[in-house]
Amino acid sequence: MATSDQKFVLYGYFRSSATWRVRIALAWKGIKYEYKPINLVKGEQKTEAHMALNSFKQVPVLVLPDGTVLVQSTAILEYLEEAYPENPLLPKDLVQRAVTRSILSEIACDMQPLQNTKVTFYVSNDADKRTEWANYWLTNGFDALEKHLAKTAGSYCVGDQVTFADCCLVPMAYNGFRYKVDMNAYPNIIRVLDNLEKLDAFKAAHAHAQSDCLPELVGKSMKDQ
Amino acid sequence: MATSDQKFVLYGYFRSSATWRVRIALAWKGIKYEYKPINLVKGEQKTEAHMALNSFKQVPVLVLPDGTVLVQSTAILEYLEEAYPENPLLPKDLVQRAVTRSILSEIACDMQPLQNTKVTFYVSNDADKRTEWANYWLTNGFDALEKHLAKTAGSYCVGDQVTFADCCLVPMAYNGFRYKVDMNAYPNIIRVLDNLEKLDAFKAAHAHAQSDCLPELVGKSMKDQ
Repeated sequence: MATSDQKFVLYGYFRSSATWRVRIALAWKGIKYEYKPINLVKGEQKTEAHMALNSFKQVPVLVLPDGTVLVQSTAILEYLEEAYPENPLLPKDLVQRAVTRSILSEIACDMQPLQNTKVTFYVSNDADKRTEWANYWLTNGFDALEKHLAKTAGSYCVGDQVTFADCCLVPMAYNGFRYKVDMNAYPNIIRVLDNLEKLDAFKAAHAHAQSDCLPELVGKSMKDQ
Repeated sequence: MATSDQKFVLYGYFRSSATWRVRIALAWKGIKYEYKPINLVKGEQKTEAHMALNSFKQVPVLVLPDGTVLVQSTAILEYLEEAYPENPLLPKDLVQRAVTRSILSEIACDMQPLQNTKVTFYVSNDADKRTEWANYWLTNGFDALEKHLAKTAGSYCVGDQVTFADCCLVPMAYNGFRYKVDMNAYPNIIRVLDNLEKLDAFKAAHAHAQSDCLPELVGKSMKDQ
């Protein structure tokens, strides 16, 4: 399964928030990779070839230079941190590491799963009903996340260091804007988001900067979707 | 916030799968703790006192002997592994660690969130419709998980070492039985589950062995719910 040119290969989708988390971490650590888009709208994640890589029919999938296949964005983040410890995305202090991972988990386990496309399309064929469902769960989640960040955030989610939590926050906020959540109700989230959007790694990883981005979205701010 | 006797305090609920994961890890590592039940059915997770500990209104919450409050089961598992490395729950090999965490994430991000009580009660007031919803997502998840475990499992989820993945599998399988999933369709999952249920730490952590278990369930197998 090794790629002929022995580099990292990331299978993803421009607007997949889980893929986006991994793009940020790769950019932050300066790891070059080939990006292979899997069009989730066209169902390319359900092909036999993709399911052989990921039985959950999802992106991201990261193929290491030796051909090893890794799945699940949060597992990939942890792998990258352990294998490439420079430009760390976890604090050194054990409690602060736990705080970082708790914010990651609030986003990755409590917010993102309830509003992804697979679920909203199961809920309804009506676009307004899908937005209503996603808006409900995201608003609940952001309400709680704002309270948590009020205790933990400095310039970024956990003090003044960029961490896994920030890798997760940006794509989640994107979906907040997309699903019409009143994001201006969350001053800590907006402050952190504005700080993150100035960083080169976050610019490079942005959904609207990817090769598979819809033409009408290229270069657009997440606030103007 | 430190407890007067300076020990670990775990706020949880007997049938909360996220609490159950942490109970397994604490038992596996031989860490004593005081268990403080939060009755999710009575809404005790929504009190001001509990929300001060966890803005997401959830269990588990682990209070360390020095009073530090940790939330989110997967963050707590990682903390326990880093702070108490004896009786490890992660392999040493970096790729096997990623495999372990990918299975954890498949359960904690892709399966558990879609079938928890908060979601099923939002979906419907009708118990049969709640079971139908939970059964649909769990069956989808177990179908994919079985394929993944066919590649990774030995006696346990990842080879022959007990890991985080096993801490997550047991409570998820419990909900599979609870929501009438045909668990016998999954030979790898059942083999691993049977092996895990023989281990003392898993017996001690079982939902039906907790002080807040419903009287009619005490001592019952998860297969006979």
